[in-house]
Amino acid sequence: MADTGDELKLLGMWASPYVVRVQLALRLKGVSYEYVEEDLANKSELFLRSNPVHKTVPILIHNGKPVCESQVILQYIDEAFAGVGPPLLPADPYERAVARFWAAYVEDKLLAPWGKVFRVTTDEERAEWTRQTAAALGPLEDGLRECSKGKGFFGGDCVGYVDVLLGSMVPWVRATERLSGDKLVDAGKAPLLAAWMDRISELDAAKAVFQDVDRVVEYAGGIQTRLSAAAASTQ
Amino acid sequence: MADTGDELKLLGMWASPYVVRVQLALRLKGVSYEYVEEDLANKSELFLRSNPVHKTVPILIHNGKPVCESQVILQYIDEAFAGVGPPLLPADPYERAVARFWAAYVEDKLLAPWGKVFRVTTDEERAEWTRQTAAALGPLEDGLRECSKGKGFFGGDCVGYVDVLLGSMVPWVRATERLSGDKLVDAGKAPLLAAWMDRISELDAAKAVFQDVDRVVEYAGGIQTRLSAAAASTQ
Repeated sequence: MADTGDELKLLGMWASPYVVRVQLALRLKGVSYEYVEEDLANKSELFLRSNPVHKTVPILIHNGKPVCESQVILQYIDEAFAGVGPPLLPADPYERAVARFWAAYVEDKLLAPWGKVFRVTTDEERAEWTRQTAAALGPLEDGLRECSKGKGFFGGDCVGYVDVLLGSMVPWVRATERLSGDKLVDAGKAPLLAAWMDRISELDAAKAVFQDVDRVVEYAGGIQTRLSAAAASTQ
Repeated sequence: MADTGDELKLLGMWASPYVVRVQLALRLKGVSYEYVEEDLANKSELFLRSNPVHKTVPILIHNGKPVCESQVILQYIDEAFAGVGPPLLPADPYERAVARFWAAYVEDKLLAPWGKVFRVTTDEERAEWTRQTAAALGPLEDGLRECSKGKGFFGGDCVGYVDVLLGSMVPWVRATERLSGDKLVDAGKAPLLAAWMDRISELDAAKAVFQDVDRVVEYAGGIQTRLSAAAASTQ
């Protein structure tokens, strides 16, 4: 890891895939940073002062200045450390627009419905949001084909912006699949994405920062149990 | 307007504030373009071919290559025409991150709930989404104070990325206020934002592309009438 001479501190919470996004980007760039685990039930003064609007992780503090929101942080890392390590976004304006298009697609069409799977209380609601998530995979498979040009990543030869955004979700995908018994990303229906998930997981940077799937299974299972119990108590 | 020698075509629909975003950015940059009004009830072959994933306006076609999604298009314009007119995003990475933070805030916390006001059928639902929209104005007022540094725009002296994103909503804000009889942006509660709305409206670029408020009142009133009629017919 390159020591840039800067003070770089990441406030995070281990289970958050949005924190893993930032860790993955920093590892890929090879930038040294200090990781600070936050107790979200008892938020630190530094945490509250650094993100008073959203009060969420991740927060990256660079030489005392806070940057919040994972997508904003990723672009900040790419621009503030432009001379360090490989870029996340390509140089060409049109290729940058294509990457940003698929990044927005991942956020709005895939991760937004998927996030609701962990916030609803009935099997019917869970099935509906899982269905919407699965439906978003078709166009994304086409997007990966278009972006990767047969080279394996959304960034082509390199692990790019969309790879980091989506790749950081892999431990949660594996955990969800284990909990439900169903494949979320089916190699029969989305062969490129299924192979891409394996490829991302094999990166040294991913191995260094991905959560242990057993631990995520336990954590995600706990959320589902609490939601179901809360729903039962109000019926 | 500068003729860049490029072929630049914008597919739009007059009532869409997201299309106005792109028009406002192109006018501010001073880049010449051809505007093509799309009939969304009878989409053109060019339209469907250019945005097969979302099938929405705006679409900017630059030398035959389509760019979709308004935020992606704005950043594309800023990067592809970096040498033409004033920049939308500042050069400094930290200032860019601050602008992107408030851009995300505007999208997620302000415009997402506000958009629902025009999609729900009951007065109770409309009141709840209006309440959530109004609640998002407080932090944004603080954001404008932080970003503008007393100089009037989110971009400081210049009309920047957040000014374009939010400014293109002004005709719809005025129309909504006229329809409901209530001030959405109250000068008593959000004096900086209220003054900023007036300042944006006075720009030559805004005057050239903002919709006529009477026409938006008629259009938005028609949507509300249709939604209410559809709700009544299913009860």
